[in-house]
Amino acid sequence: MAYFLGIDLGGTNIKAGIVTSSGQIFHKASMKTNLSSDVQICNDMAELSLMLLSEAELSVSDITAVGIGSPGTPDNQNGFLLYANNLPFSDTPMRSLIQKKLPVPLYIGNDANCAALAEAQLGAAKGTDISVTITLGTGLGSGVVIHDRIYSGFNGAGCEFGHIVIIKDGQSCTCGRRGCFEAYASGTALVRMTKETAEKFPDSYLAKLVQDSQKGSARHAFEAMRQGDEKAKELVEFYLDCLSEGIADIINALMPEVIVIGGGISNEGEFLLEAVRERVWEKAYLASSIKKPEIRLAKMKNDAGILGAALMGKGYFDDGIAG
Amino acid sequence: MAYFLGIDLGGTNIKAGIVTSSGQIFHKASMKTNLSSDVQICNDMAELSLMLLSEAELSVSDITAVGIGSPGTPDNQNGFLLYANNLPFSDTPMRSLIQKKLPVPLYIGNDANCAALAEAQLGAAKGTDISVTITLGTGLGSGVVIHDRIYSGFNGAGCEFGHIVIIKDGQSCTCGRRGCFEAYASGTALVRMTKETAEKFPDSYLAKLVQDSQKGSARHAFEAMRQGDEKAKELVEFYLDCLSEGIADIINALMPEVIVIGGGISNEGEFLLEAVRERVWEKAYLASSIKKPEIRLAKMKNDAGILGAALMGKGYFDDGIAG
Repeated sequence: MAYFLGIDLGGTNIKAGIVTSSGQIFHKASMKTNLSSDVQICNDMAELSLMLLSEAELSVSDITAVGIGSPGTPDNQNGFLLYANNLPFSDTPMRSLIQKKLPVPLYIGNDANCAALAEAQLGAAKGTDISVTITLGTGLGSGVVIHDRIYSGFNGAGCEFGHIVIIKDGQSCTCGRRGCFEAYASGTALVRMTKETAEKFPDSYLAKLVQDSQKGSARHAFEAMRQGDEKAKELVEFYLDCLSEGIADIINALMPEVIVIGGGISNEGEFLLEAVRERVWEKAYLASSIKKPEIRLAKMKNDAGILGAALMGKGYFDDGIAG
Repeated sequence: MAYFLGIDLGGTNIKAGIVTSSGQIFHKASMKTNLSSDVQICNDMAELSLMLLSEAELSVSDITAVGIGSPGTPDNQNGFLLYANNLPFSDTPMRSLIQKKLPVPLYIGNDANCAALAEAQLGAAKGTDISVTITLGTGLGSGVVIHDRIYSGFNGAGCEFGHIVIIKDGQSCTCGRRGCFEAYASGTALVRMTKETAEKFPDSYLAKLVQDSQKGSARHAFEAMRQGDEKAKELVEFYLDCLSEGIADIINALMPEVIVIGGGISNEGEFLLEAVRERVWEKAYLASSIKKPEIRLAKMKNDAGILGAALMGKGYFDDGIAG
């Protein structure tokens, strides 16, 4: 039987799993990310993998390939991780560092792209030719899969739909620009707007929720809205409008068959989905006789990173740069 | 020798050309577009083609394929033109209507996509893997070529970068949405803003230019700026800023190797190019160690439509829907 190893590298944890060729996670493990250096992180990924193999009573030769989904910009062709915002990578020779301890074929991809690949092959976009997965969490990640391959542009830097502008000169974004989609539609953006609203209307139910929890949460606005809080309702309306603006942009830019919405905010489920669909079809540029893309909720949840990373080893790799 | 026939269908003229397999226009002709019906337009395209063949002393059997670049949304797979804003098409069986008179393989593509294909194969983006061509004219057209194929999404409706929003709830756009890139960066948008500025500042040099010409032109703002008109300078600054905002969005969304700028406004040449580059690199999301896309001026000018349409017959056809 062929096994693949998928590693989901994050700023907080490294998660690894052994995945069967049919896409089942057979065994998994995780450890805290030690951010002291890039070499340390690569050594830890190798050690965690070896430990996992030992626990699963497998040897290195049982593994067809290892895939790593990392934040930042990979150069899979040459085996480097070029740059990441929150991790100490700078032209890090990730492949050679890991292969010293784990001598198997190794693929390096961007984490949001791996999540998109998992949705496209096993999840909400299974069976489609072109799909975009966006993740509404700390940031607003996006990944594009075209004809069974991750699309990551000519340089591997990929599709960063979180950093297209929806309000020119608007809210500051982590990328240095102003008015990005991420600055209005990520989980972090909703928390920021929730706190602003709570501060402005201290007698609102929303303000009470924020105060009770000591900090704002992306759930509070939806919860207060359901309790009839008018200010929370206005905030949710604005949030949904911004989210739909960006999704309509993705449709007009790329016309995918399916757009998948994942991340913490996607837990708002059918309410979110219906509200977004209604607003997007008012904004997207599509004659009534043309087939519409579908908007769906993510299916893969927490294992998307491991599975997507492992899938890279199955040949679903990047078309933008030769693997 | 293999010949291809390319037809560039517009709201004003139908232009057709016989193209050699090396991409040279061997013979061309044009006629006014008679907008009375879709059947009329298809008949006219067939007649113009037959006349062109006769002039060139070729017969139908000398032609390998015909390609038509049309405004609107084609369904090449089934041979239909589904919809166009300014032409009387509605699920028009374009292929069968034309093949009655011109029995050769026939491809139907979107006109902006054909222009992009011409730039990618023969012009400013020759030799690149991923390119986007935008046309700053009456509208803001865009076409994407990935690995030698027009990319037009899962439904043929394609990449409409003119209709991604840069200022939410901003200027009304022809597509029904507000704040689109096209509403700020097309030639028409610049003329609108020129007239507004001239009206607001009737003593400006810009106002004099507009008045003398009886109507605003997209050249006036640049011309008045060069004459030292402060209001024109502010207008050009705003225009360039909006144009760069959209180009940075295209980069963040698709990360093409080259972005080609065509259409009337591209005649502003190196000044435009330098000003755009400077602003785009402030906005695009790219770590300094990552290879940057290049921004170039279009090379193909008026023949891009004919050449791109003809190229479809050479196999550079759409990957999004089977040709």
